[in-house]
Amino acid sequence: MSLTQRLHPRALHTEPIRSEATHLSSPGVTAIALARVSVALLLSTGLGCQPPRSSVTNPKSTEQSLPTALTEETNEQPTQPKEWALAIHGGAGTISREEGDREPYFKALEEALRSGRQRLAQGEAALDVVEALVTQLEDDPLFNAGRGAVFTNRGTHELDAAIMEGRSLACGAVAGVRNVRNPIQLARQVLEKSPHVLLAGPGADDFSRQVGSSRVQQKYFSTPRRLRQLKAARREERNADRVDRSTVGGFGTVGAVALDRYGNLAAATSTGGLTNKRFGRVGDVPVIGAGTYADNQTAAISCTGKGEEFIRHSVAFDVTARMKYKGETLSAAADALIHGTLEEGLGGLIAVDAQGNIAMPFSTEGMFRGAADSEGKMIVGIWKETRPYSTPAPKAGEN
Amino acid sequence: MSLTQRLHPRALHTEPIRSEATHLSSPGVTAIALARVSVALLLSTGLGCQPPRSSVTNPKSTEQSLPTALTEETNEQPTQPKEWALAIHGGAGTISREEGDREPYFKALEEALRSGRQRLAQGEAALDVVEALVTQLEDDPLFNAGRGAVFTNRGTHELDAAIMEGRSLACGAVAGVRNVRNPIQLARQVLEKSPHVLLAGPGADDFSRQVGSSRVQQKYFSTPRRLRQLKAARREERNADRVDRSTVGGFGTVGAVALDRYGNLAAATSTGGLTNKRFGRVGDVPVIGAGTYADNQTAAISCTGKGEEFIRHSVAFDVTARMKYKGETLSAAADALIHGTLEEGLGGLIAVDAQGNIAMPFSTEGMFRGAADSEGKMIVGIWKETRPYSTPAPKAGEN
Repeated sequence: MSLTQRLHPRALHTEPIRSEATHLSSPGVTAIALARVSVALLLSTGLGCQPPRSSVTNPKSTEQSLPTALTEETNEQPTQPKEWALAIHGGAGTISREEGDREPYFKALEEALRSGRQRLAQGEAALDVVEALVTQLEDDPLFNAGRGAVFTNRGTHELDAAIMEGRSLACGAVAGVRNVRNPIQLARQVLEKSPHVLLAGPGADDFSRQVGSSRVQQKYFSTPRRLRQLKAARREERNADRVDRSTVGGFGTVGAVALDRYGNLAAATSTGGLTNKRFGRVGDVPVIGAGTYADNQTAAISCTGKGEEFIRHSVAFDVTARMKYKGETLSAAADALIHGTLEEGLGGLIAVDAQGNIAMPFSTEGMFRGAADSEGKMIVGIWKETRPYSTPAPKAGEN
Repeated sequence: MSLTQRLHPRALHTEPIRSEATHLSSPGVTAIALARVSVALLLSTGLGCQPPRSSVTNPKSTEQSLPTALTEETNEQPTQPKEWALAIHGGAGTISREEGDREPYFKALEEALRSGRQRLAQGEAALDVVEALVTQLEDDPLFNAGRGAVFTNRGTHELDAAIMEGRSLACGAVAGVRNVRNPIQLARQVLEKSPHVLLAGPGADDFSRQVGSSRVQQKYFSTPRRLRQLKAARREERNADRVDRSTVGGFGTVGAVALDRYGNLAAATSTGGLTNKRFGRVGDVPVIGAGTYADNQTAAISCTGKGEEFIRHSVAFDVTARMKYKGETLSAAADALIHGTLEEGLGGLIAVDAQGNIAMPFSTEGMFRGAADSEGKMIVGIWKETRPYSTPAPKAGEN
């Protein structure tokens, strides 16, 4: 019986957890993870086979009595840690209410959420769930990640992705990959099979061949809509003395964060970058600590917005630092970053903490997003308001 | 007269400060910087033309009464903020006392320190000084950065660098550049002339052509010593079932951090990466928040060590977070990272705070390092002990 299973006996009645067999790349990471589990055991008030969930989280947390971003949106205050929780995003930016039909976006987000809550209820590990959900969003041409990624200035696609696990702080990221169907799966392979954290450019594609990733030609990623955006961006550039290329095309990114039934957090983010980008520009997505971070002690975060500003302020890591060092709630820390540290209009983030609280602040006109938890909450939104769904959360083993 | 000059009237009597004319890439950054200066003015106890240095730093700091890493090494406690301060490093790792003559390293560090203190005393901006010092260390074949960089698995050189300025949080980084003589200068150009923060791979080399960087052929970087190291690493790899490639060749990096006479902090780091590295591996150096960070509110940090672990823990940013949110001294925060968060043996860092305190903790056998300040301190070290120099610090205008 693994240590994790001893901490989370419910896992024994579910499918095998793929992540439990994860080969951590560094013995040091394993040592840290074991040390953390030991500490969690010592701190536990219910030692043995059934410690309460709160025993594996920050013992100083008093989050339960405070409203969170999710509960603000649903006017409810949680009284105890949730069994699992989940949030996803499909990018933030100037998303006009008038421009085109947004129902396909609602539908795509709803489908991803339903898939995610099913997986978490059945006992899948957070790391596997965020990878699966980001894969699903990468495959959807609506979003700027994987298929449907924007074009670079040279008419190519260069994709970035990162994934991180909060128990061991194991992480993997890739930047500028060109022929890997699902960059988030390659990031996961970096986490699992490489001693490194970040692989960039042609080398990342070489690694993908070695680990047997599903590879595609560049045209797989191309869609007529993104080609129109590139042409528009080029026109705009020719007509303007100085175009701020960093904002052309909005902030297209997809991401997922999750708390699983074993108290583990994970975060994943993927992007096609900026329309018309050049010079091998890398944004915040593959920069661990900027666009993506997860630590079981605090929270899992996935960001979307003007990448340079998220790097400059180490946004994802700073959410966890504020929680850990200042004792801020997830909601307060996330708001402080999006509405305080960053100027308004630069983006947003999704985050879930070790208690299952969810925050989804953004300071742009809209952010494609959704959240669900084990208490039956399920909401999807693009602008300020969200659509609640009344279908109850699936139970363990339910299909 | 600029706001900065109003805060630091001594600048009026010195050479023009190149950094004062910096075109910040984002208007938002300028706004933040102005807001910070305004806050500093409000907090100042000596408004007008000659506020005390401490008015532009964190008002909560009580650093003066506490020993720092530098003062621990020299058994002295500073009583007031220093006019300027500086630290440099040339990498950390298993640096045997028996293996070869280390005098050339002492000499190279000493020369860089002498150059740096001259520049700072004469009123050069911290950003310019750290760029100049890292350039000097890149040009020295002794260190794994610029000329003398290690070889990748394919017998090539791929260089990473980053630079950051603490007043505006402006930053620039490059990863995997191949034909730029001084990667740190290219990182500075990214900071100055690009809307982006991080450029990777061939695109970074394209950018270097556009901005007119001094370009060289790959063989410029090659040295017989690094070729021997590559051959040894390949032999070792063939002979071992599993080689942890991430440690072959030690942790070669160079870096500099500085506080200038205007209260501004800056940090710069450059590296040739790991001997025998493959798959476009990128370490912590160009990851802002991991290997490099600078914020006038807290400190400037440059790291050296096992890059993956520095990324995983956002080490450079975490030093500033601990100071800002927990009120830790620079020395306590830096020690907490190197001897607490990270396992022993993974590396070290150099850091200077807004008061001119210096910390240089490391947990490896050695770290090539040096520090100097306006009070006449000047030390150079490789192992635990340091060599003090008794030459007085240069005065403004002195050559």
